Amino acid sequence: MNIGIITVGDEILIGQIVNSNAAWMAAQVTSIGGRVIEHASIGDVASELVDTVNRLRGRCDALLLTGGLGPTHDDITKDVLTSYFDDVLVEDVATTQRLQAWMQRRNRTLTERNARQAWLPSTCTALANPIGTAPGMLFERDGLFLVSMPGVPDEMRCIMTNDVLPRLTVRIDAEERPTWAYRTVYTTGIAESDLADMVGDTTSFLLGSSLAFLPNYLGVRLRVGACGLTLEERTAELDRVEGILRDRAGRFIYGSGDITLASAVGAALLERNATLAVAESCTGGMLAAAITDVPGSSAWFPGGVLAYANEVKVRELGVDVTVLAAVGAVSEDVAKAMAHGVRQRYGTTYGIGITGVAGPGGGTPDKPVGTVWIGLATPDGVHATRYAFGGDRRMNRERSVGAALGMLLKVLR
Amino acid sequence: MNIGIITVGDEILIGQIVNSNAAWMAAQVTSIGGRVIEHASIGDVASELVDTVNRLRGRCDALLLTGGLGPTHDDITKDVLTSYFDDVLVEDVATTQRLQAWMQRRNRTLTERNARQAWLPSTCTALANPIGTAPGMLFERDGLFLVSMPGVPDEMRCIMTNDVLPRLTVRIDAEERPTWAYRTVYTTGIAESDLADMVGDTTSFLLGSSLAFLPNYLGVRLRVGACGLTLEERTAELDRVEGILRDRAGRFIYGSGDITLASAVGAALLERNATLAVAESCTGGMLAAAITDVPGSSAWFPGGVLAYANEVKVRELGVDVTVLAAVGAVSEDVAKAMAHGVRQRYGTTYGIGITGVAGPGGGTPDKPVGTVWIGLATPDGVHATRYAFGGDRRMNRERSVGAALGMLLKVLR
Repeated sequence: MNIGIITVGDEILIGQIVNSNAAWMAAQVTSIGGRVIEHASIGDVASELVDTVNRLRGRCDALLLTGGLGPTHDDITKDVLTSYFDDVLVEDVATTQRLQAWMQRRNRTLTERNARQAWLPSTCTALANPIGTAPGMLFERDGLFLVSMPGVPDEMRCIMTNDVLPRLTVRIDAEERPTWAYRTVYTTGIAESDLADMVGDTTSFLLGSSLAFLPNYLGVRLRVGACGLTLEERTAELDRVEGILRDRAGRFIYGSGDITLASAVGAALLERNATLAVAESCTGGMLAAAITDVPGSSAWFPGGVLAYANEVKVRELGVDVTVLAAVGAVSEDVAKAMAHGVRQRYGTTYGIGITGVAGPGGGTPDKPVGTVWIGLATPDGVHATRYAFGGDRRMNRERSVGAALGMLLKVLR
Repeated sequence: MNIGIITVGDEILIGQIVNSNAAWMAAQVTSIGGRVIEHASIGDVASELVDTVNRLRGRCDALLLTGGLGPTHDDITKDVLTSYFDDVLVEDVATTQRLQAWMQRRNRTLTERNARQAWLPSTCTALANPIGTAPGMLFERDGLFLVSMPGVPDEMRCIMTNDVLPRLTVRIDAEERPTWAYRTVYTTGIAESDLADMVGDTTSFLLGSSLAFLPNYLGVRLRVGACGLTLEERTAELDRVEGILRDRAGRFIYGSGDITLASAVGAALLERNATLAVAESCTGGMLAAAITDVPGSSAWFPGGVLAYANEVKVRELGVDVTVLAAVGAVSEDVAKAMAHGVRQRYGTTYGIGITGVAGPGGGTPDKPVGTVWIGLATPDGVHATRYAFGGDRRMNRERSVGAALGMLLKVLR
């Protein structure tokens, strides 16, 4: 089943917000065996919506639209689709009742503006929106499955999960055709081209499966794709290719499937019955946020110290105030003292301390923006590494998180 | 100048990664007066790339492509464009020299695979990539400006900033045509439809300018668009419309332009010479990460405690262990004690404490997943609010951060 994703709204088009909806929808439909062939983002312009639907329906069995369903004048999707399908708006009584109950629970009355959201094209199926006011709409015409959903991510996710994915699953399964499945194999500590040389000629072992190299600041990800009629077939083929990759580049692979660098660290810590505490200065909570993004991280992560100010580094972590004055906060000594201090105070197996110049201000000739020291305290002692990222604030902070987790993972493997 | 953005790569298409490149490029070209009319994401398929370029070049003056320029077999963009423009690959000696120096600095030799990245279509202009191996390529044909850049976000941003945006600025300025500018006005504490009713009939004051309502979990954003020949004209018109919005809904507006909820909180704290410390349990660093995302936040944020484990709440924040045992960690008493404890310990004007059930596990009938207590300690005392978000882990954590900042901002205004 070929699927097209259409996002309507100037906020995406002008870059005011990132199109996370398209990625989420694509991952969901891919996981049930759908094949996404294009994402198109267009503005709040009726003719462009009509042109895009016309163009993509020729190549797709299903179109997933988000955006333009709100109660205000800039929301055009419902009217455009009503006219596109030669339909008229009628009141959907079930939706009106749901809206009235929704407002009542919030001690608000149903305004005329919101009441209009219950008027839907007569031939669509209303898809209930349990957490917002705009329902989704499903149109089924001549083999085309077209869904229009609100652009608010949580509302779209509810409607997809409750109504759209179950219906698409039934259709995809009924096709009884081979579908693609994907798995990501994660590496760290090796450049893309060196990894490609290490993996070598792929035609000899891929045999119709696919392999892509995806570098980012955490390392190079290998995406394996396999096609098969059943889940078992696809899984067996993914296992086979992953096995060959592990034979050829295993020492750089830290995991595969639904993992992150933080969850790989967590799994390695759990295996050793070990724990971790963190002391963050320039990353200011981002390392802990990545760690606690892992469900169950409380088993190996009690917490730590947000040591943004120097006096916090001294008071909470025992950094020597004379050392701090002599060598500065962004230094090997302070990174090591932070890692050691948080490990002692929190009684954990490992401690990480991060201190750096994230930018845009604060750089000096000796320590330009992007200079980051990361300390790692282990049962065997404390060491620290200097990094020179030298990008913007966001990039320096993200890379520091990746580098810190990478340092610990290296010790754990 | 109409601009199209084309993203090449299965990783976007199947939702493995979010297309943050398109949003960043769109925001940049919009800020210099370009008009983005579509983002298209397609797979690593030659015919689809050719079709998309052909389709969009009819409507666009400039096309910005990212992805598919790496050194591995799945990177097809360079070959497709070479053939599309009836060109041949020739060695770009400057790029070879840069690659050799790049490898030398890293104590690596230039492999054949990487050396091939210096072979470029003979008629393109090579755009140097200072932080990676794949150069950008600029093709100028019959009025079309087509740039192909690597998909690694930091590399694309470098090439855009150094080479692409300056050239586009010259072209857009030379057109001497009216262009659009945008500004976002931020509200919190009011629903989209109520805000729309409060703003009232927009045709009477927009007069050709535009207004869009964009709800998310932090509040409703109002995006104002204004068209004009000069920056001064556009700014004056944006000021005029923002003034009317503030007249009509000012008490729900907390700022406009390049701000976030955290930076608005920071500005309000600075104005009062006040400071903030945080104690985070279920958000595990996300609140501090949002705060320290604001450059200069060290002036009002010394840090805080990552109190993920209960023993940390007791030891570091002075939460009463018998209270904790009696009412549980997710409770009014513990949220208040965390806020009070971190304010005392860090000597700040305000303290925030967050404790909740983020999910997926840990929910009970009394305290289902999504139950979050947020405590706020001020010079006048401590209070706490219970929230029932009830979504997934990510959503519960993000909404907690937004609610905490909103609570503080309300007290500060």
